[in-house]
Amino acid sequence: MSLRDAAIGIFDSGIGGLTVAREVARRLPNEHLIYLGDTARLPYGSKSPVTVSRYAATCVDFLRREPLKAIVIACNTASALALADLEHDLEVPLLGVIAPGARAAARTSRGGVIGVIGQEGTVRSGSYPRAIESILPSAKIVSHDCPLLVPLAEEGWLTGEVPRLTLRRYLEPLACAKIDTLVLGCTHYPLFKTLINDVFTKDYGMDVRLVDSAEEVTAELCDLLTRRGRLNGGGPGRRRFFCTDAPERFAVVGRRFFGDEFTEVRQVDLNASRP
Amino acid sequence: MSLRDAAIGIFDSGIGGLTVAREVARRLPNEHLIYLGDTARLPYGSKSPVTVSRYAATCVDFLRREPLKAIVIACNTASALALADLEHDLEVPLLGVIAPGARAAARTSRGGVIGVIGQEGTVRSGSYPRAIESILPSAKIVSHDCPLLVPLAEEGWLTGEVPRLTLRRYLEPLACAKIDTLVLGCTHYPLFKTLINDVFTKDYGMDVRLVDSAEEVTAELCDLLTRRGRLNGGGPGRRRFFCTDAPERFAVVGRRFFGDEFTEVRQVDLNASRP
Repeated sequence: MSLRDAAIGIFDSGIGGLTVAREVARRLPNEHLIYLGDTARLPYGSKSPVTVSRYAATCVDFLRREPLKAIVIACNTASALALADLEHDLEVPLLGVIAPGARAAARTSRGGVIGVIGQEGTVRSGSYPRAIESILPSAKIVSHDCPLLVPLAEEGWLTGEVPRLTLRRYLEPLACAKIDTLVLGCTHYPLFKTLINDVFTKDYGMDVRLVDSAEEVTAELCDLLTRRGRLNGGGPGRRRFFCTDAPERFAVVGRRFFGDEFTEVRQVDLNASRP
Repeated sequence: MSLRDAAIGIFDSGIGGLTVAREVARRLPNEHLIYLGDTARLPYGSKSPVTVSRYAATCVDFLRREPLKAIVIACNTASALALADLEHDLEVPLLGVIAPGARAAARTSRGGVIGVIGQEGTVRSGSYPRAIESILPSAKIVSHDCPLLVPLAEEGWLTGEVPRLTLRRYLEPLACAKIDTLVLGCTHYPLFKTLINDVFTKDYGMDVRLVDSAEEVTAELCDLLTRRGRLNGGGPGRRRFFCTDAPERFAVVGRRFFGDEFTEVRQVDLNASRP
C-alpha cells in the first residue's frame, strides 16, 4: 500500500474530537479516517500529566497497528501534556491542536490581548500562552478553565439560562481583561460559539473574535499533506470509529457530533494492544 | 491479627465516597479505614456496566491485599452495577449503598411516592426502584439522572443561580409527580441538601424528605459489626487513603470532603495488582 492510501488517525478522550474528525472529513473527503475515543477513561481534562501521557501513548499504539500518513491529537489536554513525549519515537507526522490554535490567535488578534479557555489540564499546562508568546512576545494572555462546559455540552444544554449564566461567570475575568480574541481550547466548546458571542456582545458590550482549534488543525493537516504530495486521489475515504467503553452511547452522541456519515462504532481493549 | 483489628475497606470512583468514609469514621472512630478513590478512571456514572464491573473488581482486589472485616462500595453506580458480581467469590461482607438507601426510603415515605436522583449508570440500572419495590410493592417511583451535579460540586458551585436553576430543572418532573421522599443516589448530592430543600419549599411549595445513602450504609455497617462482635475496642483507628491518579488534587479536595483528619494520600497502580 502506498502512503497516499494510508489513513489519517485521530484520537481523543471521548466524543469531542469528532468535531475535528468532521472538519477533516469535510475538507479531505477522499482520505481514510480512523477515529479512536478513549471513552472508558474519559475525561482527560481533570487528570494528571503522567496519567494523560500514559493514556495517549496507548491510543497512539492502537492507531499505529496500520499504516498512517498522519496522526491528529484531537484533544487539547493530550496535545498540551503528551505531544512532546509521543513525537520522540514516531516517524508519522503528529499534529496537536495547541500550535495551530496559537498561530491562529496570534494572527487574529488586533490588540494582542488574548483569552484562552480550556479544561483544567490544558490551562494548568500553560501550553497555549507559551505557544502564543513564542509567536507574539508582546501578547497579554489571560487563561481560565471552564470545567462545566463539557458536561453541559454532553447533557445537550447548549442554550438557556444555565449555560448562559455559567458562561457569564467563566468569561467575566476575560471580559475585565478586555481580550479581543478568545481561543476555544477544548473540542466541546465550539458548540457554545453562538452563546459565547452573545454573552460578550450583550452582557459585556464587546466584540471578541473566536478561534476554533478544530478548524485550525485541519487547515494545517491539509497544508502538510498537500506539501508532501500525500493526498489521496482515489474515491471517497472510509471512516472507521473505535471507542474503549460500550459503543451504544458513543453511537448516539457521535451522530450529533459527526453527522449522518457516522458509521458503526467498535469497542476495543487498549490494554491488550500493549505488551 | 484478629478480625477485630482488621480494617474496613471503602472504595469509590473518586472523592465522593469520602462523604461515606467521613460518616464511618465519625460513627466508628476506633476502626481502621482504607479508602481507595479510582481517580485515574473516574467517573463511573457515565460508563457501561461491563466497564464499571471490571474497574470495581480491580478496586476490591487492591483492598483485599490485607485482612478486612468489611468492604463498603461508596459509589452508587458501582453498587448498582457491580455488587452482585463481586459478592460471588468474596468471604468478606460487602455493603453497597443501594439497599440501605432503598430501605430508608421505604421507611421514610408517608405516601409511597418516592423520587430517586443519581448519575446515568445508577438510574439506568433501575436498582433503586427494584430495591424499593421489593420492600414496598405499592410504591410509585420516579427516577431522574442529574449528571451536572457532580461537576458543579467538584467546581465548588454549591450555592447561587447556576446550581439553583440546574436543580429546579432536574427536580421539576419529580415535583410534578408529587414525591414525598427523595433518595440522593450519588455521594456528591448531599452537598446540595440545603439547596434541594430550598427549591422544593420555595419553588414548588412542597415538603420532601431527603434520604442520604451515606448515612444509611454507615448505620447498616455499625449494625453488622456489632451483631458479629467485630467492633474494634482498641484506640483510635488508622486512616489510610489511596488514589489511582496523581494525589495532589485529591489531597486538596479530600480535606473539604473528609475534614481535618484527612492524612496523606498515596498513588497506586491497580493494573499491577491483577495478574
